[in-house]
Parts: sequence; C-alpha cells; structure tokens
Amino acid sequence: MAVKYFKYDKPFTLENGETLTGLTIAYNTFGRIKPGRNNVIWVCHALTANSDVADWWPNTVETKKFLDPAKYFIISANIIGSHYGTTGPLDTNPETGAPYYGSFPFITIRDMVNAHILLAHELGISGVRAMIGSSIGGFQAMEWAIMQPEFMQRLVLIATSARSQPWTIALNESQRMAIEVDPTYGTNDPEAGKKGMRVSRAIGLLSYRGSMAYNETQQENDNLYKLTGFRAATYQQYQGDKLGRRFNAYSYYRLSQAFDSHNVGRFRGGVETALSTIKAKTVIIGISSDIILPVCEQIFLYKHIPDSELYIITSDFGHDGFLVEHEKLNSILKPFIEQPLKSI
Amino acid sequence: MAVKYFKYDKPFTLENGETLTGLTIAYNTFGRIKPGRNNVIWVCHALTANSDVADWWPNTVETKKFLDPAKYFIISANIIGSHYGTTGPLDTNPETGAPYYGSFPFITIRDMVNAHILLAHELGISGVRAMIGSSIGGFQAMEWAIMQPEFMQRLVLIATSARSQPWTIALNESQRMAIEVDPTYGTNDPEAGKKGMRVSRAIGLLSYRGSMAYNETQQENDNLYKLTGFRAATYQQYQGDKLGRRFNAYSYYRLSQAFDSHNVGRFRGGVETALSTIKAKTVIIGISSDIILPVCEQIFLYKHIPDSELYIITSDFGHDGFLVEHEKLNSILKPFIEQPLKSI
Repeated sequence: MAVKYFKYDKPFTLENGETLTGLTIAYNTFGRIKPGRNNVIWVCHALTANSDVADWWPNTVETKKFLDPAKYFIISANIIGSHYGTTGPLDTNPETGAPYYGSFPFITIRDMVNAHILLAHELGISGVRAMIGSSIGGFQAMEWAIMQPEFMQRLVLIATSARSQPWTIALNESQRMAIEVDPTYGTNDPEAGKKGMRVSRAIGLLSYRGSMAYNETQQENDNLYKLTGFRAATYQQYQGDKLGRRFNAYSYYRLSQAFDSHNVGRFRGGVETALSTIKAKTVIIGISSDIILPVCEQIFLYKHIPDSELYIITSDFGHDGFLVEHEKLNSILKPFIEQPLKSI
Repeated sequence: MAVKYFKYDKPFTLENGETLTGLTIAYNTFGRIKPGRNNVIWVCHALTANSDVADWWPNTVETKKFLDPAKYFIISANIIGSHYGTTGPLDTNPETGAPYYGSFPFITIRDMVNAHILLAHELGISGVRAMIGSSIGGFQAMEWAIMQPEFMQRLVLIATSARSQPWTIALNESQRMAIEVDPTYGTNDPEAGKKGMRVSRAIGLLSYRGSMAYNETQQENDNLYKLTGFRAATYQQYQGDKLGRRFNAYSYYRLSQAFDSHNVGRFRGGVETALSTIKAKTVIIGISSDIILPVCEQIFLYKHIPDSELYIITSDFGHDGFLVEHEKLNSILKPFIEQPLKSI
C-alpha cells in the first residue's frame, strides 16, 4: 500500500518549546470513506512500526476482521521522530540544510498526537468511529481521547498504560545506555550507533516477549550437551541485526525518551483526573503475561476511564501478544466496532 | 573477615578439556568446627558476589540466625573466573607470565564445584551439615549434591533452577552483546569493556528486580511534570557505575557464559534423572515475583528431588528477594538446619 505524505507549511511547536519547520507526516489509508463519514478507524502505531498497519499487524486489515477495509476507512500515520516518512532524525533540518541526526529535538507522545491532529484536519476528518492503539500506540490514542474527547466514538486501548512506570523507564534507559556505548553514536551518519541499537533491540525483545514465549519458541530440542551456541542467544543476535537493517539509532533513542515521558496526568491535575475526562466508549485489553505494561496497568485504566470494559487475554506471548493473538482481539473488537452506539 | 587462600599445585582440568595451572581458591570461614565435625555449613555464592557471606548476605551470619557463627562453622569459597581472589581473568597465566584477560578459558558450574571439592579435601571436610546456594549459588549446590550425594546432610536451594532456560540465556546474551559493543573490550587492560559492563549490569538489574520492586523503590514522588531525568533512569546509571568499580568485564562475560551452560542433566541422562540421585534432605525456596528464575523452576525441582520440601516466599523484590527477605528465610532455614535428622 502506497504511503502518502502531508506537508505542513507552518512551524510546529513541540511540548518542550522548540519548533520543527517543514513537518512532513507519512500516512496510509485502507478502504474508502462512506457517505456520512461514520466509518473512519484511526490506528496509532507502536515504537518501531509504521503507518502500513496491514504490514505490521497481520490478520487484521482483512475481510471479516475488525479492520475490514470493505467496511471501514482505516488510517494510520507515522509518528514524529520515527524512521518511516514522518519527519525524523535522518531528515534534513531546513535551517541547516543537513540532516538532524543527534540534534533532532526531544519529543513527547503529545507532540505525536498534535501532529496527527493536523493531518486529520487536513483530510477533513472531524471525528472517527474508533481510535485504536496498542503499546505506545495506546499512549497516543489515550492522549488524543483526552485532548479531543469528542473526536472519537470508541476507544480501544491494548497492552498500554496511563503513565510510564519506573521499571519501564529503567528498561528504556538501559537501551539508551547500550546505544551510548557505541562510539559511532553522535556522528553525523545514518549508520551511527547501530551496533549499540542491536543491543537495545535485544534488551527490548526480552521485555516484549517474556520467559514463557522464549521458553516455548527458543527451547533447545536437538543437542542437550552443548555448552555454548544456544538458540536463544542466536535469536538475540538475529533480532538485533534485523532492526539494524530497518531503523536508525537516533530515532530509536528519541522514541524511547518519548516513551518515558508518557504521563497523561502531566499538567492536568494527575492521571486519574485526566482519564476521567475521556468520553469515548472504551475497550481496554491486557495480555496476561505482559511484563512491560502489565495487567495492573490496564486494571488501573478500567477503574478510571468512565465508560470502559476490560478484557484480559490469556497468552504466553507477553507484550507481543497484541501482534500474535489476532483471533482473540477480533472476537472482542469486531462486534465492538460494528455495533451501533446507544448514545454517542 | 580475612580472606584465606588455598593454592592447588597440580593442573586443574576444566569441563571443556583445557587445564588451569596454579589454581588459587579464595575462601572465608566464620565460627569454629566442633568436635564430631557435624556443624559445617557450606554457602555457594551467586554471580558477582564473593566468599565473604556476611558482606553480601546481610542479617544471616549472626547470632540466632540460620548461619549463626556461634553454632556453625560456615565456609564459602569464591568461584573460578570471578574477581575476588580465586583464579580469574585478571590473574597471571603462569604459562605466559601475563594476565589472562580475554584468554581466560570457558568455565562451567561443574568446574566451580570441582575446584571447591579440592578445597574441602584440603581442609579435611568430608561432609557438611548443610549446603546452601541461591541463584547460581544454587546451581553449584545442586551440582555438588549430584556429584557427591553423600557429602551433605541437607541441601538448601533458593531462587534457582536445574537448567538455564531460553529467556535467561537471551538475557545473558544481551548483556554480553553490550560488553562487545565497547571497543575497549578485548584489550589487555583490567578496565577493558567497563562501559559495556555498566550496561550489562543495568540489564541484569531489570531482571533481578522486576517491575514491582522498581515501581515501589524508584517511583517519582516529587516532580510529576518532568519529561526526562527520571529516578529509575538515574538508578540504572548508578548501578552500572557501582559494579564498574568492583568487578571486571572479562569475569562478568565468563560467569554469564557459565550461567548459560548450567544443565544438571548434561551427560547424565537428562535433568530428571540427575535430580533423582540427590540424597540430601532438601528445602527449595522460590520467590513469588522472580522473573529470571521463576517459581515454575522451583516447582520442577520439588517434583524431581526425592526428599524435598517447597516454600514460595511472597515478595515484591523479584530474584533479589533472596537478599532482602532474610526474616522469611530465617523462619524456614533456622529450624531446618538445627533439627536432628531422623536418618542421614
């Protein structure tokens, strides 16, 4: 599916006070807007994903699935700071004529949402049937629901939380430390810091898939006598290499900082107060074995978002369960999105 | 407490076939051997600890505690490859006259135990009242119980497992990857790889203390509006620095490989068969929130070690619970070690 681009011609002010000029937003759409415009679904993507939902979320953008493109107009936009078309560290800073690299500004989840609000406005989308986000996609969806409570009829929050907690921040800091150990990080080169980012990804994977997933998928089943060269170790190297081929360390670093800064309660009188302003009918989904954004976080959301339902999916795949357990997601989300709402 | 040294004057053969010459073993003792020699307790230490049990295991080597030095003769020896007196990578290779550094051989848990068996023999200790190990200390205690089933009357296995599982191996591999990113690693310098090891330690901490422990101890309680500089992030940097001051990257790397290789079933017809040969009366203790050697591992031990009891300690401190929950440990272990055995 071809990526489209929206170029915003005014300066874009970030939460930390800096401005970006020449902001470009990459986005994908699937299906068509129907008369009445009541069939728009906006999907917010997670950390290193992109706007091509059908690519990174298998078995969802398909006939009879909850993102059925025959019924719905599905839109997803790449987040600021990322590697996939929206302005990020490898893009040219119009003020210097050279790529940003390490000088790309600090961004927050609210910055990502503010950029996408501009895109919605540009496309004439004044409201959506459903806003969906998993992981830091859920951070964005939640922020949007607080910033524009009337914009969405339904909100779907999967494996996400209202605020980054200490263990997750420590996890992200460890990943940034790994990038900083790489002496190429900081140089003006798209390949800078990639050896360090390989390690970051390996660390990340440990948290996205907990012990049960590794113990099922990376178990030794051949030579029980070996002392080194274990399958699980090779897997870490492989996953590091794989991200190295498709992402850059400057984006990774900034996105992980945005992750840390996530706190829907910031300058809103606290997390509970912020969540209480959400008006959308909300479905919250947690994954039983998630160690990065564990079920207690989704229970918290359920307690504080007024019109919400909570589902816990039993899965051994940890946080990555949201990418794997598409049948369970479909059984919850297809009827939720299809059903007419009693009151909007 | 002063460290003592035992120098072994013959070549010491490792499991991988290589030999170490000039093996030195550092050890500490507390209390005195009583007539009848029925009061010896051997403590096996974990990854980056040392033979001074009173130093790293607070509130245990004390009057009325389970390691009461007035009652017992407590001995602990530093493991091969470590940084605290037993032959390791920073020691001089007698064959070259220079320190080993990266040429220090690959070692296994069985090598560690074989070295300590030599020390026991040297000291005339032909059997112990109790053998105690936590984490990779438990790996050693379990190996010893299989290698010399008659050597110990009682066996205590805390937060440990019969074999390294894929998630744990992946965790260790990620830590080694972090050391390898540091370009100084591989040079002949005691400081080599220390920036990388800082990251390894930060990763390790995430697993030793899970989300509950971080969320309790590293929670922000002052400024809820900040975007960076979180306490949990500072904690990771601090812990990395702290290990960097007391340990070396070559030891860390080799010990983490020894961790991976742990498999009591290797060349013994499998894990279950090996565990079934343990004759000591065994107490197994798991910590409810341990994500690195989770409770399912201790349940497995309980199922396969013939004369065993299982306790699960409820604690938010994860794997590190074994260092923190000394009162709960004492209530289980003090009577277990004191009571006369019906049959030995």
